[in-house]
Amino acid sequence: MAKEVTSRSENFSLWYNNLVIKAGLAENSAVRGCMVIKPYGYAIWENMQSALDKMFKDTGHVNAYFPLFIPKSFMAKEAEHVEGFAKECAVVTHYRLRNTLDGSGVEVDPDAKLEEELIVRPTSETIIWNTYKNWIHSYRDLPLLCNQWANVVRWEMRTRLFLRTAEFLWQEGHTAHSTREEAIEETTRMLEVYADFAKNWLAIPVISGVKTASERFAGAEDTYCIEAMMQDGKALQAGTSHFLGQNFAKAFDVKFANKDGELDYVWATSWGVSTRMIGALIMAHSDDNGLILPPKIAPLQAVIIPIFKGDEELQQMKTHCESLKNRLKNSGITVKIDDRDNLRSGFKFAEYELQGVPVRLAIGPRDLQNGTVEVARRDNLTKETVPMENIEQFVLSLLSDIQDSIYRKALNFREKNTCNVDSYDEFKEKIENGGFIMAHWDGTAETEALIKEETKATIRCIPFDGDKTPGKCMVTGKQSDRRVVFARSY
Amino acid sequence: MAKEVTSRSENFSLWYNNLVIKAGLAENSAVRGCMVIKPYGYAIWENMQSALDKMFKDTGHVNAYFPLFIPKSFMAKEAEHVEGFAKECAVVTHYRLRNTLDGSGVEVDPDAKLEEELIVRPTSETIIWNTYKNWIHSYRDLPLLCNQWANVVRWEMRTRLFLRTAEFLWQEGHTAHSTREEAIEETTRMLEVYADFAKNWLAIPVISGVKTASERFAGAEDTYCIEAMMQDGKALQAGTSHFLGQNFAKAFDVKFANKDGELDYVWATSWGVSTRMIGALIMAHSDDNGLILPPKIAPLQAVIIPIFKGDEELQQMKTHCESLKNRLKNSGITVKIDDRDNLRSGFKFAEYELQGVPVRLAIGPRDLQNGTVEVARRDNLTKETVPMENIEQFVLSLLSDIQDSIYRKALNFREKNTCNVDSYDEFKEKIENGGFIMAHWDGTAETEALIKEETKATIRCIPFDGDKTPGKCMVTGKQSDRRVVFARSY
Repeated sequence: MAKEVTSRSENFSLWYNNLVIKAGLAENSAVRGCMVIKPYGYAIWENMQSALDKMFKDTGHVNAYFPLFIPKSFMAKEAEHVEGFAKECAVVTHYRLRNTLDGSGVEVDPDAKLEEELIVRPTSETIIWNTYKNWIHSYRDLPLLCNQWANVVRWEMRTRLFLRTAEFLWQEGHTAHSTREEAIEETTRMLEVYADFAKNWLAIPVISGVKTASERFAGAEDTYCIEAMMQDGKALQAGTSHFLGQNFAKAFDVKFANKDGELDYVWATSWGVSTRMIGALIMAHSDDNGLILPPKIAPLQAVIIPIFKGDEELQQMKTHCESLKNRLKNSGITVKIDDRDNLRSGFKFAEYELQGVPVRLAIGPRDLQNGTVEVARRDNLTKETVPMENIEQFVLSLLSDIQDSIYRKALNFREKNTCNVDSYDEFKEKIENGGFIMAHWDGTAETEALIKEETKATIRCIPFDGDKTPGKCMVTGKQSDRRVVFARSY
Repeated sequence: MAKEVTSRSENFSLWYNNLVIKAGLAENSAVRGCMVIKPYGYAIWENMQSALDKMFKDTGHVNAYFPLFIPKSFMAKEAEHVEGFAKECAVVTHYRLRNTLDGSGVEVDPDAKLEEELIVRPTSETIIWNTYKNWIHSYRDLPLLCNQWANVVRWEMRTRLFLRTAEFLWQEGHTAHSTREEAIEETTRMLEVYADFAKNWLAIPVISGVKTASERFAGAEDTYCIEAMMQDGKALQAGTSHFLGQNFAKAFDVKFANKDGELDYVWATSWGVSTRMIGALIMAHSDDNGLILPPKIAPLQAVIIPIFKGDEELQQMKTHCESLKNRLKNSGITVKIDDRDNLRSGFKFAEYELQGVPVRLAIGPRDLQNGTVEVARRDNLTKETVPMENIEQFVLSLLSDIQDSIYRKALNFREKNTCNVDSYDEFKEKIENGGFIMAHWDGTAETEALIKEETKATIRCIPFDGDKTPGKCMVTGKQSDRRVVFARSY
């Protein structure tokens, strides 16, 4: 089973697709560009949702739900926003089908044309700010801190499971504030929540920073992002937090009375992460045998596999495994027993490796006699035989160790594949090997565009942290405030 | 504030709308028929989701996600299904907008017409069974027990917040089985889950039964339902569970090899509940002062209101209230303090009554001295002063008592408004008063249609339980197996 996965070195992109399909995470549907998220993939998403939702609530946010459809005219109200989204959106024009005259099927009923077309939301700033207009009157109504878990549609022409699909699931936070400072603070706070989540749950190290003007969200004054490195050295933007200034408040005329009774436009932020993170999770950690999932996000943290011959041995095993399962379960570990009798253990081992279950516990007749269990960890494929005595403690600390190791490994990989470059020639050479290149840039869109055209590398972000020494742009030799992160990206 | 709510006796329908709006549950959006679910309403939905999701998982189901869009041709594959849904659906015909020539806005780009139109899912049987075709090959792949939490769209012409909206949120379970018996068992099991949830979480008594042929889900062999009585005596269908036979397996050619290697079509069920339940919750329990929420589903179970004059008293109060809050919180009670100093307590009391917070704890300076707190319950508006000593136990048992009382009240109301009727004349008279009428019916669609036309009452269900004595149809005098439930309905 696992053998059928193409290796990363052979073809990274094919390896990724193989894993997604063979581990049962998702598949392409009959609808162009739309995926089916299968139960195992959805279970990962549920774990992500549950951790993030708690973080959002702990930072004072509440959930709400806004319409799937956006009137066409709303899209046009914010000039940059419509530029960014109008060219790839699903448009509802009719509200009824009718039977074809020959009775062979159904067709759109021309009498049921909508007066104004509706866009399936690609993002919800417009419909939400149109709603906020009625919710916000005074500074007492602020801040307004809403989040929405929803599906969105962007008509991408080239799609890839999780990474870029026409429909995807995400959360979008939309907040309203009385001052610029407070809105910027919120933008930063939510980026920090994302970075924290990426590090401590997904075990993915990220670089936090601000996008250049040309990479900004359509309608934002500033876009902050977290950028992660995949195992092929490419960058993946894993989350964004936008400072929207007063752009949407102006487009939808949302004003508030401040403490002095003066009217001013409201300040806005929006921020989102999506099912794309599942793609990041796979490409950051997994190997040629299958998925490697950080225990904190794995739908199944441990699996118990009894190794037996015939019914009698199985029966002996069963009570023992059940008791082990309950001990682990009571310690808060997600665990199941796989005692299917029509499959060889070797097959099962490969299957759970493919699925990235962090810990495998195998028990054979000898273990039963000796009071031991064979514990294998998925991340580095090592195994050892340990006594049953303190097995809960052992597995708990192993899970914690695996979580840390996966993170450290990803961090080491990123550090090994990040370098400073000072000349454009060297840049052109190095970028072919992938990885992050820290280089000086003169701050102009022209230079940025030139580099992108000539090397396919983009500025992933201007990092908030790290070396802030000024220098000279590697292309033009002009003044540069600091090195920025270049990479090819997803 | 509460005064502005129309009374139930004056205009039930207006009372309902008033409550939804004034309690901040939902509002109409700029998109015809689509609602905005506001944070307080969405918090109720989250509690419903969380309880139901656990019940689904405890009965062996897993979550997955299928595409929002359904190719038009899929809709036509099951003849009854398309009849039921084609006439009220949102149709995506284009995938791009372009700027208008005069630059004044955007318009649909005629060059971006889809080859095949896409329907925004009104329900997902077709896209899911088209997917299951690839998932199911042998009896070993069965049963397949998936659930999806999603938004769906049905282009209703007359909409009402929560009860009937163009877009709504729901869950839809779609299961596949190797035998008819097993599928029917699943259909029954999930209806029981719904009835259990309605009774034990929503505090709504329901009648479980089977729909008549004319009220069946489009494409089902049988539709089971739970029917609840609202305070105006009307029935509301709160959940349905469908036995789909082999209809969708045949339409999408989904076969499996049984243990003997013979191919057969797969048996199916589907079942769903939606944000409509929030409407049921309101109309079943609430009163002229506002919402009455069962504690197990209330976003906020208790509120603490300090009663103070000036800053000094407030400061004294604060520590005391914080400590009370923490005691309640540690006992698992959802609680907050409202110490806003710009509002009178009377105003706050009315606000929390409107929002249906089950328990209100008010603390004045005298309470502080005496070590007491005034506890008011929302359901019957009684209050008493109790010692702080065992306040956690007191509130916990009060919440449990409120949950029970609300259910008993609704059950009494239903019993008082349910009667047996044997003549059609009496039926016509009694139906004007609302309520459930248990009457004999000859089992034909003709009689059913006649009664509906003449009285606007429908057969809500043929109950699984209750009196099963045969009799004569009240209209035709023909043989009747048992009394069925008639009512006017939402």
